[in-house]
Amino acid sequence: MLTSGGDAPGMNSAVRSIVKTLINKGAEVIGIRCGFIGLLKMKFTKLDVMDVDHISSDGGTFLKTGRTDKFKTEAGINLAVKNIKKMGLDGLIIIGGNGSIMGAKKLAEKGVKVIAVPGTIDNDIAGTDYSIGFDTACNVVISSVDKILDTAYSLVNENPRVFLIEVMGRKSGDIAIHSALSGGVDEFLVPGKELNYKKIISNLEKKFVRGKEHAIIIMAEGVGDSEIIKENLEMELGFKVKRILLGHLQRGGNPTVFDRTLAARFGYQAVQSILNSYGNFMVGIQNSSIELKKIEDIDEKDKEFDHETYELCRVLCR
Amino acid sequence: MLTSGGDAPGMNSAVRSIVKTLINKGAEVIGIRCGFIGLLKMKFTKLDVMDVDHISSDGGTFLKTGRTDKFKTEAGINLAVKNIKKMGLDGLIIIGGNGSIMGAKKLAEKGVKVIAVPGTIDNDIAGTDYSIGFDTACNVVISSVDKILDTAYSLVNENPRVFLIEVMGRKSGDIAIHSALSGGVDEFLVPGKELNYKKIISNLEKKFVRGKEHAIIIMAEGVGDSEIIKENLEMELGFKVKRILLGHLQRGGNPTVFDRTLAARFGYQAVQSILNSYGNFMVGIQNSSIELKKIEDIDEKDKEFDHETYELCRVLCR
Amino acid sequence: MLTSGGDAPGMNSAVRSIVKTLINKGAEVIGIRCGFIGLLKMKFTKLDVMDVDHISSDGGTFLKTGRTDKFKTEAGINLAVKNIKKMGLDGLIIIGGNGSIMGAKKLAEKGVKVIAVPGTIDNDIAGTDYSIGFDTACNVVISSVDKILDTAYSLVNENPRVFLIEVMGRKSGDIAIHSALSGGVDEFLVPGKELNYKKIISNLEKKFVRGKEHAIIIMAEGVGDSEIIKENLEMELGFKVKRILLGHLQRGGNPTVFDRTLAARFGYQAVQSILNSYGNFMVGIQNSSIELKKIEDIDEKDKEFDHETYELCRVLCR
Amino acid sequence: MLTSGGDAPGMNSAVRSIVKTLINKGAEVIGIRCGFIGLLKMKFTKLDVMDVDHISSDGGTFLKTGRTDKFKTEAGINLAVKNIKKMGLDGLIIIGGNGSIMGAKKLAEKGVKVIAVPGTIDNDIAGTDYSIGFDTACNVVISSVDKILDTAYSLVNENPRVFLIEVMGRKSGDIAIHSALSGGVDEFLVPGKELNYKKIISNLEKKFVRGKEHAIIIMAEGVGDSEIIKENLEMELGFKVKRILLGHLQRGGNPTVFDRTLAARFGYQAVQSILNSYGNFMVGIQNSSIELKKIEDIDEKDKEFDHETYELCRVLCR
Repeated sequence: MLTSGGDAPGMNSAVRSIVKTLINKGAEVIGIRCGFIGLLKMKFTKLDVMDVDHISSDGGTFLKTGRTDKFKTEAGINLAVKNIKKMGLDGLIIIGGNGSIMGAKKLAEKGVKVIAVPGTIDNDIAGTDYSIGFDTACNVVISSVDKILDTAYSLVNENPRVFLIEVMGRKSGDIAIHSALSGGVDEFLVPGKELNYKKIISNLEKKFVRGKEHAIIIMAEGVGDSEIIKENLEMELGFKVKRILLGHLQRGGNPTVFDRTLAARFGYQAVQSILNSYGNFMVGIQNSSIELKKIEDIDEKDKEFDHETYELCRVLCR
Repeated sequence: MLTSGGDAPGMNSAVRSIVKTLINKGAEVIGIRCGFIGLLKMKFTKLDVMDVDHISSDGGTFLKTGRTDKFKTEAGINLAVKNIKKMGLDGLIIIGGNGSIMGAKKLAEKGVKVIAVPGTIDNDIAGTDYSIGFDTACNVVISSVDKILDTAYSLVNENPRVFLIEVMGRKSGDIAIHSALSGGVDEFLVPGKELNYKKIISNLEKKFVRGKEHAIIIMAEGVGDSEIIKENLEMELGFKVKRILLGHLQRGGNPTVFDRTLAARFGYQAVQSILNSYGNFMVGIQNSSIELKKIEDIDEKDKEFDHETYELCRVLCR
Repeated sequence: MLTSGGDAPGMNSAVRSIVKTLINKGAEVIGIRCGFIGLLKMKFTKLDVMDVDHISSDGGTFLKTGRTDKFKTEAGINLAVKNIKKMGLDGLIIIGGNGSIMGAKKLAEKGVKVIAVPGTIDNDIAGTDYSIGFDTACNVVISSVDKILDTAYSLVNENPRVFLIEVMGRKSGDIAIHSALSGGVDEFLVPGKELNYKKIISNLEKKFVRGKEHAIIIMAEGVGDSEIIKENLEMELGFKVKRILLGHLQRGGNPTVFDRTLAARFGYQAVQSILNSYGNFMVGIQNSSIELKKIEDIDEKDKEFDHETYELCRVLCR
Repeated sequence: MLTSGGDAPGMNSAVRSIVKTLINKGAEVIGIRCGFIGLLKMKFTKLDVMDVDHISSDGGTFLKTGRTDKFKTEAGINLAVKNIKKMGLDGLIIIGGNGSIMGAKKLAEKGVKVIAVPGTIDNDIAGTDYSIGFDTACNVVISSVDKILDTAYSLVNENPRVFLIEVMGRKSGDIAIHSALSGGVDEFLVPGKELNYKKIISNLEKKFVRGKEHAIIIMAEGVGDSEIIKENLEMELGFKVKRILLGHLQRGGNPTVFDRTLAARFGYQAVQSILNSYGNFMVGIQNSSIELKKIEDIDEKDKEFDHETYELCRVLCR
């Protein structure tokens, strides 16, 4: 088992679930440190119940994760397969994002029995409604927004105060949409939708006329450079905009109950699959039930845009 | 619109969604303060967008909720119906728990067009997988458990240290199960399952033998008096057990993203129903989709025990 | 009484303390909304115990604060004095930062009995060791740093990962120093100290050699433009640096016990002074005791740099 | 170095400061695990900078602490002294509460060069205004009180709702007083002051008359059994009181900036003393400055009651 790519809160919960379930079934578990790097460098370590009993509450991943270009080469993949055979592993569970699923596919093609578990705050993996870490990241964002609202409502200047908050999500707008829907946000910008300054300003000005003395804008990083967007907004508005760059703050924090229980369920299902000799699947959740998807069918491009939540969010931000 | 019964974090988000959606459709919204008390005492107040714009992040309910025995009488119901007519309300949206749904049923029988929205931390309402406030309460519980784990792991005494944490949920074990699944918990006690001290002690002792120097037990309030259970555990173990009574702590706190977005979706759907002249429904979520249930079919006793999560929890607490 | 300038968490606690103490003494209290703006526009409101009983836990200031250029003119000051006389106020308590103290001085020169209470997260007011809001802001910063550490320790890339976190403080480095001292930080940049890239890089590289795979740098906003500093660091290091801009996040959040109790003590002392007919003082805390300083002696430039904490921080960041 | 007695948040920060400062001076550091237990069982471990670099943010103590009756015997003390000599330790830094200081005294009498660092959430150590962990515990308490206020203000019943919250502090009322002062609390009960039910009820009833529909009472554990006090209150009031038992929740959580910086300063001073061959001192803080106290002069009974804060609290809870 390894955690790979960008770390996400809740990965520890998945590791704990996998270790406990496997040991409960009488199996032995090897953890691989630092993701694919550890697979190449043989950073293998036996895991016992006592190693994972207490880790659910910790952010990040205690197995560490890592990225390496070597894994993108044929030679790298071959070395990984050799190491897996050398250690006599029956299967490999990979917890990570789209990059990790790509890596899992390549190992599957070489005959390794692989199960992928979706873990990324970006929630941009096709075949699953949620990935581990997304809920925690959204909660970190809204607790930041809540703090900014404290000051937004407190200080009245001659001009309204406008705050532009950049959040993560790569090409996905899910963190931005869910955070905006959670309240207190006046405008949200996501990839895949037109960036129309006139419409933004018109929405804000309607609110200023109504008596509101500030506005909060959340933008997904995939929309563009927040410094440039800030400058464009300032030009249209005629006054300064305050920019907040949450950055890697969103990758940390104790995981939420949602992420911990999702991870526990994913981990349990991954083990069932391995024990039943199923391989080359990704575990996912769809309409609340845990399902297996053929790993070769998972394609980042298939991730559907959540129109329903987007439209609801538009109503509530007006 | 009113919030009723025990307050739950996220109710404000539902109110905001209802007000914004109705006003967006050109309707007028009346808020009723203090739940059914306000319905009897005519505590009616017109709500505008600016009244609710900022409330999503606040715990509790700004409309306040209230309980009164007068609403259980025929005379009380008749007065409520009279007041609703006097104010010319087209319909009534009631956000609350099982008691509130009972009240909604009675009003429906008298011809009031009622939509119920499930809001209670106990998650004990049939016909919906989740109710507003449950996720926040679980997160409050695990952040408490996480804190107790800090000291549990730090201090080594001659005897192991055992902590008994009582959580809410009335007759439901959902808060206990979801919190226990979230990690760090060694044993969990829920209503509907046998309370077998021998088995509890045997599970704990297996862990002590394995080297663990503490144990965390979560019990749902529905299981019984935690003081008596504590004493029984002490008798079996032969040493002191520490008891934590979280109580109303679990009813507060800023709502989570899950509860805020669930509440926003519920509120939006409730408005659609009212506008379409549907009445006498409860909004619910099942397998991730928002659905309408006939309010006369909702019966607390039909709430199913979540066997799958219970069993997974048993595996992970071993 | 008014809150002025930048809002700071804990201001509500000061307001509550002032209202409760004055009413306890049989006096009447008028709150002025939106700071000096409200003084000019006569936004006066009578405050009672029930208005302030519950506000201590809220971030921001419920009286609101405001900035206006009009108050910098002779005409503005004269209008303020006129309004104070018209309302028959015996004295004026102003809670705010250096700008507010400047305003207080001008009113004092015109014969208004003024007491200033230092409230600003920047902690840059001379004559007091701490100002209201500083402790809360520091705690918001370290809880952000803690989250960033979760991911910093979890992900191993080919190059070490360096995070540059910009924090507030205007010309003061206090937030940066106290946050850096709180742990997990490898380098900190504050105004008044040389910005020597060679030394920074040499410190970081010593750590990378020692096996550390990431580094956290905190910089006070007074040091310069964090985008330029980031680019300079990248040039020296030869790889990308991640920048986090906490911004107004630091102005929000529920105030800490330290800020709430400090504010309560300041407020109580301010009332004692007013009742004793003392005027033209600033309340401050020095070596743990609450003291009065002549307001004309308060000069931002006299705020001493905290060399002891700076030096300790240097030791612990090595 | 060892951490002893009840663990307290911030102890890790003290350990980090001691290790970094000593290694900076070229010294070698040995950590003793599980407090006095480890001293008897030779649980010694060499500590390096990389072992402590990241621990400041963690609650509890990674060195663990422990209590053993063996240390109270002459034989136990002699074994400890023998082990210290065997390991060639130049001195011993003990971080803990009153019990640990008693242990330190006994070792000092046998010629061991000991420096004590006050660490306990109870803040009941004479010779220092604050001990490590107190500020964090108070913040945990008020964040619990804030949550209870959410529901207290939201639900209106036929009778007012009264909440009784028991907090820690052993014989000290400091946690109760500081939490009560932080707001939202209506009554507080501390050891050393008369427990007068008539006066309590009269204060609450004055508030109910004023329109308040709930009351929060904080009581220090040293006042007595909260179950009995609850029953007495119910008898006087004529309706139910809700009891919350925060328990060991108060011992956990990420330490605050105040505790982390206090611990860092204490640790630094402890090292200076050891290096200067001073022994048999306790490090403390008085009026904001770090001082050394002869360890034989430290007597729990000398801890003064904080009358000023108590009186202010009485004013603000009325």
